[in-house]
Amino acid sequence: MDSSWASSSLGITMPKGFLATGIRAGLKASGKPDLALLLAPEDAICSGTFTRSVSRAACVDLSAARLQERAGKVRAVLINSGQANACTGDLGLIDSQRATEALADRLGLLSEEVLICSTGIIGEPIDMQNLLKSIDPLVVSLSRQGGDAAATAILTTDLVEKQVSLEADLGGRRVCIGGMAKGSGMIHPEMATMLAFLTCDVGVSFDKWEAMVKRVVANSFNAITVDGDTSTNDSFLAFAAGDPLEDAYLDDLEVGLRKATQHLAKAIARDGEGATCLLEIKVIGTSSDNEAQQIARTICSSSLVKTAVHGHDPNWGRIIAAAGRAGIPFCLESVELLLGPYKLMAAGKPLKFDREAASNYIKKCKISDKFFNNKVDFCLKVGDGSGLGIAWGCDLSDQYIRINADYTT
Amino acid sequence: MDSSWASSSLGITMPKGFLATGIRAGLKASGKPDLALLLAPEDAICSGTFTRSVSRAACVDLSAARLQERAGKVRAVLINSGQANACTGDLGLIDSQRATEALADRLGLLSEEVLICSTGIIGEPIDMQNLLKSIDPLVVSLSRQGGDAAATAILTTDLVEKQVSLEADLGGRRVCIGGMAKGSGMIHPEMATMLAFLTCDVGVSFDKWEAMVKRVVANSFNAITVDGDTSTNDSFLAFAAGDPLEDAYLDDLEVGLRKATQHLAKAIARDGEGATCLLEIKVIGTSSDNEAQQIARTICSSSLVKTAVHGHDPNWGRIIAAAGRAGIPFCLESVELLLGPYKLMAAGKPLKFDREAASNYIKKCKISDKFFNNKVDFCLKVGDGSGLGIAWGCDLSDQYIRINADYTT
Repeated sequence: MDSSWASSSLGITMPKGFLATGIRAGLKASGKPDLALLLAPEDAICSGTFTRSVSRAACVDLSAARLQERAGKVRAVLINSGQANACTGDLGLIDSQRATEALADRLGLLSEEVLICSTGIIGEPIDMQNLLKSIDPLVVSLSRQGGDAAATAILTTDLVEKQVSLEADLGGRRVCIGGMAKGSGMIHPEMATMLAFLTCDVGVSFDKWEAMVKRVVANSFNAITVDGDTSTNDSFLAFAAGDPLEDAYLDDLEVGLRKATQHLAKAIARDGEGATCLLEIKVIGTSSDNEAQQIARTICSSSLVKTAVHGHDPNWGRIIAAAGRAGIPFCLESVELLLGPYKLMAAGKPLKFDREAASNYIKKCKISDKFFNNKVDFCLKVGDGSGLGIAWGCDLSDQYIRINADYTT
Repeated sequence: MDSSWASSSLGITMPKGFLATGIRAGLKASGKPDLALLLAPEDAICSGTFTRSVSRAACVDLSAARLQERAGKVRAVLINSGQANACTGDLGLIDSQRATEALADRLGLLSEEVLICSTGIIGEPIDMQNLLKSIDPLVVSLSRQGGDAAATAILTTDLVEKQVSLEADLGGRRVCIGGMAKGSGMIHPEMATMLAFLTCDVGVSFDKWEAMVKRVVANSFNAITVDGDTSTNDSFLAFAAGDPLEDAYLDDLEVGLRKATQHLAKAIARDGEGATCLLEIKVIGTSSDNEAQQIARTICSSSLVKTAVHGHDPNWGRIIAAAGRAGIPFCLESVELLLGPYKLMAAGKPLKFDREAASNYIKKCKISDKFFNNKVDFCLKVGDGSGLGIAWGCDLSDQYIRINADYTT
């Protein structure tokens, strides 16, 4: 273990002092685990990033308000899957308040120290009877080993759990970062992904922590898209608690935070509804990073690009067409495009390339991908500026249509 | 025939003095018609609206520049399908110039009086040898009855021709409007649709005509979306030529123009790649029409809404989630939503409704739809303002994925 961040185990409960759990509370019709709890140490601070949707759920309103009132001094977050508790009228807020009150009572905390996140079907209220009678077994089962159970209980149509844990030696001291997330559909975060949580066992001032979290969110959760739809419940909560970390190591810490959030963000894109691969679009040569990011995300959102990748089609024309509508000016004559090792365009003109080999490259990435480390990657150069932006997404398959047309009502 | 606009025949050549044609020039591999020509009378003016894409094709650059230089005084437009002539480097402009020069010579016009529109595969240059040797037979075949042939020759993956012709009595005088369009994929016009053309046999000042065309485009071509992808070649050209129309009848004329452009725009949405129905989203109650339009278009672009419609799922949650991310503030508590005759939400809360009947309503619209007049229509009220906006789109089907993943390279 040295100053570079290495992978570890335990997920969200890897950092010292954090406990978690996940149980079956009878909220999901499937009977799968559907209620999770994360408990942070006494000195914890939390930075929250929430959906910008006008139609955001009551639990988001409540959690955002409490974080602001308490300047990040909160202790616990209750997470239910099954019902999003969005568009449920006044009941939405009432239920969110009741649930956090019951949990706060049981934990000996103030209601204001407890947050709540919900995910699932929009318009359905939470089955409060089942939730309330599950508070006691939930608290009883809290443990240092509960990260896996929590990561499972927050899932909806996700195929796999999404966890991360990293550790590094910062100034002779072991620092851990843990995280978990859920995604699947309605993924095009405006401020955060559907649900993601991060823990870290260092003491940092709230202002510095907020600034750091804001920066890493921009290049992780806000850089992914599955289907262009921003959810009503998107929330990312990042907790820090522990002995103070010297300022000299804050940059190193941010490297770890970026690594952890990008890992979770890519895991969400990879497990997008119907996805068969992770798509990475890198854009360089703009005057600012923001501009590059905007072009990258527009390309990553294009149905035509996504279907081309699904069909193993090295269709550079769709990439250029999507880049052109991103709202960022660039000179078509200086465009260069690479698909993995294959150069498809230079000086704005298509090159002759081995189309079959390029197509096989996409095919190969896909076969070995889905839950492994491979990806289909395009790199687009649009000028000589120093701007760099990366976006992650996935292909668009028949399966996406089936999941969203045939199997839901 | 009276002052209300009635449907007529002949399409683009219905208005007096306009000639058209469409032939096989050997540009399409399929051997289908692929070269069209529209010739306007001597006194014609033309207003052009073009794609805002940074990656726009050379033919768009050339046509836009000529229209501006000549303040709309142009006479002819050459339209080829098969090759978009976008991203073809310097050759793009050279070929566009050569093609229009050859046509101008044959017609006895200045090159600057001839425009060119291309549609088809991006990155492929036009087969100039075939195009140039087709100029003579093209001009020879020009006729008053050539509207159908032209409307056919501009198509790519479209399943049907898209034509309109309207006539009305304005101040004791017969006025005709004709039009044709092509669409299919990469449809999310920023300023105009892929390719659309309109003719009208009245004399109007260029300034008034431009202003009128701009207004009707905003509520027709710019109100549709098939897949969120703005094309490199989108162009709309509207010609007017004939005896001057009294100012008193300009409003009546604009009603006809709106009717004609909305007809073509809806025909494009209805024939979107893989579409099985036309989707109409009406939004009311915002403070301005623009705000309502933005919400309507965001809903119409949502993959989740589009797949729900495809699956006959009256999924109001996805409508509200999409509305929430449109960037327009509204009060969730005042939201009301109708699907055809079914009220799904009131005061921001879901209502109990007959889900099966609502699903059957969508199914029934779809069965009788595609190329007929039916549509699946949602009306969303978000407040008490006077703003109104309508957007048109289509459902998202497995067939869209197949067309764009399996059948193209």
